[in-house]
Amino acid sequence: MDLRFEVDELYAEYIECLDDGDLERWPELFTEECLYKVVPRENFERGLPLALILCESRGMLRDRVEALRRTSVYAPRTLRHLISNIRIKAQEPDGMRVQANYAVLQTLNDEPTQVFNAGKYVDRVVRVAGRLKFKEKLCIFDSIVVPGSLVYPI
Amino acid sequence: MDLRFEVDELYAEYIECLDDGDLERWPELFTEECLYKVVPRENFERGLPLALILCESRGMLRDRVEALRRTSVYAPRTLRHLISNIRIKAQEPDGMRVQANYAVLQTLNDEPTQVFNAGKYVDRVVRVAGRLKFKEKLCIFDSIVVPGSLVYPI
Amino acid sequence: MDLRFEVDELYAEYIECLDDGDLERWPELFTEECLYKVVPRENFERGLPLALILCESRGMLRDRVEALRRTSVYAPRTLRHLISNIRIKAQEPDGMRVQANYAVLQTLNDEPTQVFNAGKYVDRVVRVAGRLKFKEKLCIFDSIVVPGSLVYPI
Repeated sequence: MDLRFEVDELYAEYIECLDDGDLERWPELFTEECLYKVVPRENFERGLPLALILCESRGMLRDRVEALRRTSVYAPRTLRHLISNIRIKAQEPDGMRVQANYAVLQTLNDEPTQVFNAGKYVDRVVRVAGRLKFKEKLCIFDSIVVPGSLVYPI
Repeated sequence: MDLRFEVDELYAEYIECLDDGDLERWPELFTEECLYKVVPRENFERGLPLALILCESRGMLRDRVEALRRTSVYAPRTLRHLISNIRIKAQEPDGMRVQANYAVLQTLNDEPTQVFNAGKYVDRVVRVAGRLKFKEKLCIFDSIVVPGSLVYPI
Repeated sequence: MDLRFEVDELYAEYIECLDDGDLERWPELFTEECLYKVVPRENFERGLPLALILCESRGMLRDRVEALRRTSVYAPRTLRHLISNIRIKAQEPDGMRVQANYAVLQTLNDEPTQVFNAGKYVDRVVRVAGRLKFKEKLCIFDSIVVPGSLVYPI
């Protein structure tokens, strides 16, 4: 039960970084060596390697944030994550397998809020120095049609 | 608290069957004698009997899955459930009354993800051989306009 | 843990009042002196005072419900709240600071369900006579475009 609560907190903090635009905190929720991948459901199910975003270390996550901060071609937007069905699927030697459903709502300036992306997190979570972190985070999204562009982490 | 956690798990497993397309597992979450009903909010509130889906035993749920598997007229789609506000409303001799809000997002091929259906689960949950199961599950949905068709369980 | 559970229950009851149209119960979830504010994200972040709804006591919340009951110019609608990421951010002398993401889906008669409003609750929760209540509830919403009209509490 306590573990489930801790997992909830990890996801809540993850979402908070992204929705509050506090992107610099986002890589800190991953282990030094990690895998972060945003991939369409179809590719995932067929075992195709193509991913929209692929980062293989915390350094790469930081680079991504840096790049986002330096770029200004993207229209300002507000993201709002909803998470449901967080489940600890298994405890394995290399960490917990955790899954959850997610939806991201997006609001562009002067436009109504819309469903931007929805799918499933398939994650591996480990404990480092007493705190839970993501060792693997796969964001498997349902629609290959991405409204606007998928530039911010999911 | 432990009970609340168990209830959460039941709903999470329910959703996982549906969203992963593992429909054969879905009837196993109900008791042998059960009631599964998908009904528009207006009909429910006025006490009108008309339902979009009505199954009165686990056998009927299995038949429904069989029928879905044999039919191929429906465009492939991905469903994604979000659940919120799970509440144990009462403990009664014939089970717990549990309610929750739900939203189902749907993704058709080559289309963006959209809100497909939203509403409220009004359920009765009992323990059978140590495991929680649905004895009654009413899916009371808000819009009488069902985009596409409501063929998969909600 | 127990506290987190109690907080969950407060939010669940809050949502239930609104989604079931049981508006008279809604002010009872606030303290006698309270602040309820619905404000666009931009105004909140810039410290601008403009709010779509502003109530500064339980009496004002009751007045608002009264006014809604007497008015019949609004098309009937069903609201459906989804809440995610409830977090107790801090325990302070004047209460707990609690935050959560929310989305409100709206269904007008004969129309499909749509995303109506999404944003973040930034709340202060206190215990009064053994029960948790809202002393402050800020609903900070993402889109300045409000489809239809925002007349019901968020």
